[in-house]
Amino acid sequence: MQILPLTQIGEVGPGDDLAALMIAALDAEGIVPAAGDVLVVTQKIVSKAEGRAVDLATILPGARAIELAAITRKHPPLIELVLRESTDVLRAVPHVLITRHRTGHVMANAGIDRSNIGPDGADLALLLPEDADVSAEALGARLSDHYGCPIAIVVSDSFGRPWRYGVVNVAIGASGLPALLDRRGLPDRDGRPLEVTQIAVGDMIATAAGLVMGEGGEGIPAAVVRGYSWSAPARPAAALVRALAEDLFR
Amino acid sequence: MQILPLTQIGEVGPGDDLAALMIAALDAEGIVPAAGDVLVVTQKIVSKAEGRAVDLATILPGARAIELAAITRKHPPLIELVLRESTDVLRAVPHVLITRHRTGHVMANAGIDRSNIGPDGADLALLLPEDADVSAEALGARLSDHYGCPIAIVVSDSFGRPWRYGVVNVAIGASGLPALLDRRGLPDRDGRPLEVTQIAVGDMIATAAGLVMGEGGEGIPAAVVRGYSWSAPARPAAALVRALAEDLFR
Repeated sequence: MQILPLTQIGEVGPGDDLAALMIAALDAEGIVPAAGDVLVVTQKIVSKAEGRAVDLATILPGARAIELAAITRKHPPLIELVLRESTDVLRAVPHVLITRHRTGHVMANAGIDRSNIGPDGADLALLLPEDADVSAEALGARLSDHYGCPIAIVVSDSFGRPWRYGVVNVAIGASGLPALLDRRGLPDRDGRPLEVTQIAVGDMIATAAGLVMGEGGEGIPAAVVRGYSWSAPARPAAALVRALAEDLFR
Repeated sequence: MQILPLTQIGEVGPGDDLAALMIAALDAEGIVPAAGDVLVVTQKIVSKAEGRAVDLATILPGARAIELAAITRKHPPLIELVLRESTDVLRAVPHVLITRHRTGHVMANAGIDRSNIGPDGADLALLLPEDADVSAEALGARLSDHYGCPIAIVVSDSFGRPWRYGVVNVAIGASGLPALLDRRGLPDRDGRPLEVTQIAVGDMIATAAGLVMGEGGEGIPAAVVRGYSWSAPARPAAALVRALAEDLFR
């Protein structure tokens, strides 16, 4: 398996044609995508292209945002945006605000990012895409059409974990591959039912790509994962979101 | 970056020389490890080589194990082993038992596995290595000596996540690389302090390797991750364990 970084992507702005940018970046690396290749793109460039930046100066924080901003010591307009993007607040302590995003993904700050917005964007916050599975689907359709073969897409974001330090990349959007692979009912080598029955393939591919993309200042917002094979039907990243009724750690 | 599966590893048994098995498997694939290569091995073969299999028929469950077995509908002797290997029970509901392993890692069943033990091992349970960081250190020393260059090691296991379906591989042991990479204080491209400050490199490498190793019945218990570069000092997988005082979801 290979992971190929796409280094030739400049600053992405609202309204940019992400598929055209990706095709140009693939060209620049001399990569010709083939069936089974997965293009991983960071949430950040998808959000930027979709115009999801919000000027924090235009956001008036409500009472709940002001209260949570005091607890978390974060910027009240930012917290207001987090609340608008969330259905539930799981934890709020100094410097930490963990919510359930309206798409169901549990993460810090509803995935809203204030870093790396661009030199002129001091007061901008970048929201997640409206629906990253839809973004992945659209990007995949364009690329599959262009290259004449199915290209899978993963939209990645970096998440913390409750009992482990450090972030890892996970999938918040996916198309063309089984983001969640269900192996329930299959026997293991000794004929016993498998104890591990579902594999978070979308997350694993996002994480693998994250190793070459880096975090923060590196500016490598996309990579191709080549040589991972699957036969199960495609499932979006929404399949990775654990049902609320099964949340033991709310 | 490349991820190369080691397919030529047979059944591993107690007392086997894991370093010798890895060298033979690398030879069989024609892989000559070089500086910067990371050898990822599953917890399962490390535990088997270290003789961590326990005959469940010899385990007498105590009152607490019997109580938790009734709640979780699991085998009482298995639960007794889980409790002996754990410092805390985080959640116990039907079919789910999440504990804090004595090494600090929070996971299902204290990482104890009943599948894939071998055709004659119907009543065997496989514990985690005594200390997977120590296992990684020992294996790394042997391989580095053999190949005449530093070889990093990651011992991987598959973990569930509280808010996401599916397992991913993480690092429970590491040597020769920064399992946790600290970037606090570094500015992003726009000169702002990075919001994401710690990266779980050990977990990410384990996850990437997991894509080629598969889960359950595939029998690919090791892989080489080639082309990931780092300059930070090595830190063991213990660095990935969040301090108890910072656990918001106990």
